[in-house]
Amino acid sequence: MDRFDCVSPLDFRYYIPNDRLRALLDDYVTEAARVRSEARVEAAATRVLARMGICSEEVADEVERAAELVTPQEVAEEEARIHHNIRALVNSMKSHVSDAAKPYIHFTLTSFDVVDTATAWRFKNAALKGVLPALEELERVLIDLARREADTLQIGRTHGQHAVPITFGFAIAEYVSRLGGRIEAIRQTAENLRGKISGAVGAYNASSLMIEDPEKFEREILAELGLEPSPISTQVVEAEFVTDFIHALISCFGVLANLADDMRHLQRTEINEVAEEFQAEQVGSSTMPHKRNPWNFENVKSMWKEFMPRMITVYQDQISEHQRDLSNSASQRWLPEIIVGLTASVTRLTRIMGRLVTDTERMRENLAMTEGMVGAEPAYILLAAHGHPNAHEAIRRLTLQAQEENRPLGEVLQRSEELAQYWEQLTPRQREIVLDPSQYTGIAAEKTRKICDMWEERLGL
Amino acid sequence: MDRFDCVSPLDFRYYIPNDRLRALLDDYVTEAARVRSEARVEAAATRVLARMGICSEEVADEVERAAELVTPQEVAEEEARIHHNIRALVNSMKSHVSDAAKPYIHFTLTSFDVVDTATAWRFKNAALKGVLPALEELERVLIDLARREADTLQIGRTHGQHAVPITFGFAIAEYVSRLGGRIEAIRQTAENLRGKISGAVGAYNASSLMIEDPEKFEREILAELGLEPSPISTQVVEAEFVTDFIHALISCFGVLANLADDMRHLQRTEINEVAEEFQAEQVGSSTMPHKRNPWNFENVKSMWKEFMPRMITVYQDQISEHQRDLSNSASQRWLPEIIVGLTASVTRLTRIMGRLVTDTERMRENLAMTEGMVGAEPAYILLAAHGHPNAHEAIRRLTLQAQEENRPLGEVLQRSEELAQYWEQLTPRQREIVLDPSQYTGIAAEKTRKICDMWEERLGL
Amino acid sequence: MDRFDCVSPLDFRYYIPNDRLRALLDDYVTEAARVRSEARVEAAATRVLARMGICSEEVADEVERAAELVTPQEVAEEEARIHHNIRALVNSMKSHVSDAAKPYIHFTLTSFDVVDTATAWRFKNAALKGVLPALEELERVLIDLARREADTLQIGRTHGQHAVPITFGFAIAEYVSRLGGRIEAIRQTAENLRGKISGAVGAYNASSLMIEDPEKFEREILAELGLEPSPISTQVVEAEFVTDFIHALISCFGVLANLADDMRHLQRTEINEVAEEFQAEQVGSSTMPHKRNPWNFENVKSMWKEFMPRMITVYQDQISEHQRDLSNSASQRWLPEIIVGLTASVTRLTRIMGRLVTDTERMRENLAMTEGMVGAEPAYILLAAHGHPNAHEAIRRLTLQAQEENRPLGEVLQRSEELAQYWEQLTPRQREIVLDPSQYTGIAAEKTRKICDMWEERLGL
Amino acid sequence: MDRFDCVSPLDFRYYIPNDRLRALLDDYVTEAARVRSEARVEAAATRVLARMGICSEEVADEVERAAELVTPQEVAEEEARIHHNIRALVNSMKSHVSDAAKPYIHFTLTSFDVVDTATAWRFKNAALKGVLPALEELERVLIDLARREADTLQIGRTHGQHAVPITFGFAIAEYVSRLGGRIEAIRQTAENLRGKISGAVGAYNASSLMIEDPEKFEREILAELGLEPSPISTQVVEAEFVTDFIHALISCFGVLANLADDMRHLQRTEINEVAEEFQAEQVGSSTMPHKRNPWNFENVKSMWKEFMPRMITVYQDQISEHQRDLSNSASQRWLPEIIVGLTASVTRLTRIMGRLVTDTERMRENLAMTEGMVGAEPAYILLAAHGHPNAHEAIRRLTLQAQEENRPLGEVLQRSEELAQYWEQLTPRQREIVLDPSQYTGIAAEKTRKICDMWEERLGL
Repeated sequence: MDRFDCVSPLDFRYYIPNDRLRALLDDYVTEAARVRSEARVEAAATRVLARMGICSEEVADEVERAAELVTPQEVAEEEARIHHNIRALVNSMKSHVSDAAKPYIHFTLTSFDVVDTATAWRFKNAALKGVLPALEELERVLIDLARREADTLQIGRTHGQHAVPITFGFAIAEYVSRLGGRIEAIRQTAENLRGKISGAVGAYNASSLMIEDPEKFEREILAELGLEPSPISTQVVEAEFVTDFIHALISCFGVLANLADDMRHLQRTEINEVAEEFQAEQVGSSTMPHKRNPWNFENVKSMWKEFMPRMITVYQDQISEHQRDLSNSASQRWLPEIIVGLTASVTRLTRIMGRLVTDTERMRENLAMTEGMVGAEPAYILLAAHGHPNAHEAIRRLTLQAQEENRPLGEVLQRSEELAQYWEQLTPRQREIVLDPSQYTGIAAEKTRKICDMWEERLGL
Repeated sequence: MDRFDCVSPLDFRYYIPNDRLRALLDDYVTEAARVRSEARVEAAATRVLARMGICSEEVADEVERAAELVTPQEVAEEEARIHHNIRALVNSMKSHVSDAAKPYIHFTLTSFDVVDTATAWRFKNAALKGVLPALEELERVLIDLARREADTLQIGRTHGQHAVPITFGFAIAEYVSRLGGRIEAIRQTAENLRGKISGAVGAYNASSLMIEDPEKFEREILAELGLEPSPISTQVVEAEFVTDFIHALISCFGVLANLADDMRHLQRTEINEVAEEFQAEQVGSSTMPHKRNPWNFENVKSMWKEFMPRMITVYQDQISEHQRDLSNSASQRWLPEIIVGLTASVTRLTRIMGRLVTDTERMRENLAMTEGMVGAEPAYILLAAHGHPNAHEAIRRLTLQAQEENRPLGEVLQRSEELAQYWEQLTPRQREIVLDPSQYTGIAAEKTRKICDMWEERLGL
Repeated sequence: MDRFDCVSPLDFRYYIPNDRLRALLDDYVTEAARVRSEARVEAAATRVLARMGICSEEVADEVERAAELVTPQEVAEEEARIHHNIRALVNSMKSHVSDAAKPYIHFTLTSFDVVDTATAWRFKNAALKGVLPALEELERVLIDLARREADTLQIGRTHGQHAVPITFGFAIAEYVSRLGGRIEAIRQTAENLRGKISGAVGAYNASSLMIEDPEKFEREILAELGLEPSPISTQVVEAEFVTDFIHALISCFGVLANLADDMRHLQRTEINEVAEEFQAEQVGSSTMPHKRNPWNFENVKSMWKEFMPRMITVYQDQISEHQRDLSNSASQRWLPEIIVGLTASVTRLTRIMGRLVTDTERMRENLAMTEGMVGAEPAYILLAAHGHPNAHEAIRRLTLQAQEENRPLGEVLQRSEELAQYWEQLTPRQREIVLDPSQYTGIAAEKTRKICDMWEERLGL
Repeated sequence: MDRFDCVSPLDFRYYIPNDRLRALLDDYVTEAARVRSEARVEAAATRVLARMGICSEEVADEVERAAELVTPQEVAEEEARIHHNIRALVNSMKSHVSDAAKPYIHFTLTSFDVVDTATAWRFKNAALKGVLPALEELERVLIDLARREADTLQIGRTHGQHAVPITFGFAIAEYVSRLGGRIEAIRQTAENLRGKISGAVGAYNASSLMIEDPEKFEREILAELGLEPSPISTQVVEAEFVTDFIHALISCFGVLANLADDMRHLQRTEINEVAEEFQAEQVGSSTMPHKRNPWNFENVKSMWKEFMPRMITVYQDQISEHQRDLSNSASQRWLPEIIVGLTASVTRLTRIMGRLVTDTERMRENLAMTEGMVGAEPAYILLAAHGHPNAHEAIRRLTLQAQEENRPLGEVLQRSEELAQYWEQLTPRQREIVLDPSQYTGIAAEKTRKICDMWEERLGL
């Protein structure tokens, strides 16, 4: 087969041809990775059997080698014959060991001891070694950008309308902080993923037949894999460990989508404050040669639209009848796609944000469009602060007058006889802000640096 | 690569290794199919140019050959260079034609003229040649089963509780009808998928430069592909044609999931009225050799849980800013997965339902568990019909008495002095039903046959 | 109670205080409407019993009066006593009739004969008398706006970037058409809503005890209510009739959300092409007196975000075990909220779009920002049409040159020696478009009028 | 108005008529509660102004009284006039204070300082004082039930099939643990809800005009309300604090839904191991007087289906353009419904589970149905443990033989010559389990008690 036979855009387009992504995730998200991780669980179990004196260390060594030797291809062929994927793995592994070792593969285990534990191992490591390093790189890029633009004036926008000024670095610092929070959430929920070695219905029925302390048996196998057990389990681990982990991923995706939306709107022709860097040979449109589209940001938004709704699948999979039904089996096979989709968007954003072209001149020009009107807020607040009983209404009327007379609001206010008594009470700094509202950025620059400092420290960047 | 490098369960597990599915869908759902279908749109456009005298028929022939020659691999390589997939296709096709023909490839077209039209062509044909034939086969199996079991007594269950009797065929006929309705919905929405050849913002800006009647140009290209145009378009077709089509697929999936749920519950150990056929070599559980799990039905339910939430993506993709933003581009690349997921479940159910093992003896035994109590409904209705002012309450009390005395309800009623005046008014047939409520199946058998007849005729099966 | 005790924003904010909405929907969406509609079904059933000679016409008259007299309050009190809502309705209605009439209320019916039939009646009439008239009014407003602005030049935007020109009326015509399509979809699915009078498990067990042709009994009761029966039913109607209806509503909501998004982006300070009309006393911001926010458009988008995901509930409710489980009962009680939410957004948009302020001067200014570059598309197409083998690339380079030299693209092209051979071949009209690309609007104006004509005719407006 | 005018099932059915729920939640979830909480934020802000010497303590006292006096009705009337809800609140509060105090209401604040802070206060307190106490009561009931039934034999079920035995208490302990985890998640995310007092775009533009340390001003106002600030904010708090909180609620709902599903399936006529307690006067079905439906469990499942999809709204609301757009305003007004819906289901389950009727005799009978076959698992494991190279297959064949001969598996094994060498090696306890597999419950009872102990301690119950 070649990748064009595939149906999934990850396989033919976003993942398989992307070496960077594959380097981060290949050991955890592919079908081959699944088989290898399940073999690894089997090997860990036999290792603990040896430690407990139930089999020899030689047997455990043999099984460990078998876990390395077994291939996805041979497991798939065996499964085609017997229609059971874990029994197929076990049979395949057995074919790589001596008869003496055969009984100690999958000994007292049930399929989902292996499946759920392997899944926890894969997701945890995909997070720690793939998703989080990628996110920390993006966080680094955003922190650098925020610092660089900490003092770059930009109009703040609410409802798409000019509100009052901020700095561009401050706008980015919001994402530094939200992304920082998600990095912590992903780390916390990934490290909390759990395995189980408690048998077919979770009561250690099988293992307690042969082993004095079956909970210790479970703990030790999981410890081999860097995991802890579910407090209690049925045939499967308590669902909420995975639920929380996927929520952390999906909610992180939402932060990326918001950032992407902001950037593509700032790239609108009429606003034009930032731009994706274009390569010399790149074609913007098949028919409009002048176009410079924010297609990478659009891609991130689009990926979010694809993956966000899959949380519904995860919530549905919390429900499994009695000691479990299998109706979450196929659906859970799709979870690695969420990991891949998110990481693909993270690396894309890292690339684009790292080379973001910002036009600080244009930011100033845009701000100037409504600079006069922007002064309405400080003016009203200062009037109120100096005792005007109805300052908001007074200034609202003044803005209408300024519009009619086509003069800056500050000037109209300065000359207002009616409001002179208040004007005279203002400090020089306060008057300055009303007359030049581009200075009205509060503590935007200072806060930007604080937020960058804080997250660098919290994340150890 | 081999399929174990894939991330998507379709690519490594449910689709690519499944020859039956690939035979139905390969021409419409893979990445290769996308490229070929887009080349086909380009060829159709040049053909119409020739018909309008703008280029020669020889040019159109050349382009048609190029559309057959161009490979996904070369398009992908060109895209890696210029970062634009349709321009890459155009460049690749141009490399297969003479200089004279080059200008007439993609002439006056914009990328999404090609993308949206090719998508409509692929989805329509995937439905007509893949999904619908598969569904009609399932419908055939269900009709045959319903007819076969039209008279097989079964207890009707509401709230999981025994209610009053039906026949098993009648229960299946419900699915014959619901599935029939979805077959019609899929056919209707598939045939209504639309293309567009109206340029970058939908106003035929480019084509009207060179062509007298650009709407005719659009109509004729689409007619070459068996399609009609969107009434109006922006850069893209009105979103709702695809929205309705995917809704038809997803709502069809819901019917399959409901059927699967019913079958797996009927297969519960305590109920045991039906069973999936098991193969001799098949392993039910890696650790419990006696298990016969309804894993195919569970798989269908699980696939529904994976695909149903994707409707949210489709609803989000209805929104595209102004003459379109690209944030529906990546997400729409996943739509073929829904087609594949549904069809995989349809063929699976066809296989399982076609060999469904029904235990009519067990159905009778289960019915007998509560047969006496089941008579409560006809008893109450007949009392009411003969003038009892509070029949429901009278019978509710009688059921408590029957439980206490451990006698059939019919017998208790027959001997009730208080109710004798009503009992005497009943016809022999009515008394028979109260005493043997297994006869209380209404018109279940007759309705089953009617429904089968009706859908055979409506669907031309 | 007063409305501030409510939890639902519909009850305290968007619906109950809104007289216009209540006039459209009160008879169909409130709890009181539910009770009244269910009583109406009971009355219709007794009416048909009389027609079939099972009871007298006087009894049917009595029951009809009882259906009018019975109040939600008394039904609620009875339900609090016996914990069954339909039995509570029946008991309450019985208290309003003579003993002779009592047996003929709910005679042979099961609860969901009444519930599902009443629901179909309410939803169908809510659509025909509330939702659709509201939508047709919005369609009227959009058609008028499209016609008025059919020739108003506006830059077409793709990816938020200037693409090539259209007219503002043309942009609106897209919504005329998409909304027209949804009006048809809502009408079609509403008229196709079905009832059922087939008893507890759908096999007419009870009715066939007493009535020769129970399907005729069902048909006639439903005909009294303007409904047709489900082809077959369990305890409930085939789920897909309601599923399709809600899909039609939700997908219509998507069109509104897209329109709202477009308008609020056109209202951005930097674009400023349209505006919501503001009232004299209206406050834009509690703290920024100069703000004019597109808050009505934002509200429509927000309502869509609230209601769109509820389709997931509807898809889940397709699944009901065996002859039904009750797990769709509470969830279905929320469906009227979707009807109300959509209609609230429709009437809001009608109001705002009917008074939309458009700034055609600003549209021209915005277009002028990139007018020169916009000519790139026609220039490239005309070159290609006259035989240039690589026109797209030639023009892409020319745009870079025009940017560097700060001259209009048309002028650069006109003076290009290299391209002179092509320039000479152009018709005067073609040259005109390249030099003044504001004329490059294709057939935008003509198509606008066509679309308005078509939908006026199709919808009988 | 009366409640039957309402559209929302909460308002007319599940919340308003439910005094128990209202006692838990009324101060936090109604529209009146919203207004009161926002007035409370205004009062807190003025209090801190006084502490900072910007106004007098008398002014702060006046404002505090105004916050108590202001009614939702007068705010609604003012909003109808000026179309801005927070400005309406401010105006209404001002009408309750002296002119001297007027300027210090809403001083330097923006609307969403108030809205977001009040929301955090309401949600946090709704959780701590309503949702969590209700959940802890349910947890208490489940722990008691688990302990009571810790030794009650029950067959474990996977895929709806008999697997191997557990105890009923063990099955409940799974829910004790999962619910315990969700209680912790809700507490943690509720306590982490954040407020903000940072002005219109989050840069403290207004407050820094008048106040030396505007972050201190923010911290102190929030401290008055028991809250901490968002690390950084735009016009609104970082979205993810609410996102995480709602995820905790929704994922808790999933645990309830799973429990409800298990209980209603155990109540199936053929299984019949548990039952909802029925009241003497209660009607099970309007037409089948004998029915005892698990309608409360069905209701919980149905509520989950209604509320779970609303997470999609919350994920969409993570995205707000630039310093925010208002498109999350209406949608966020629905969030209290999720709190109410969950708590309603919690109290319902508490009531039903607290009076759950368990039929331990029936549990034993059901277990006996397949008791022999259940021994297959221990038999295969013990054979393997004693060196059988292919134990799984050997036992699979033995189960077929046992079925054919209609003898217990244990007996067939005991007499097998082929397997005698293994049988002899078994310990007496091991043989006992194979011959009487009802003893094959692993450490179910012990684990049940451990889990109950652990959660009692972790939750301080």
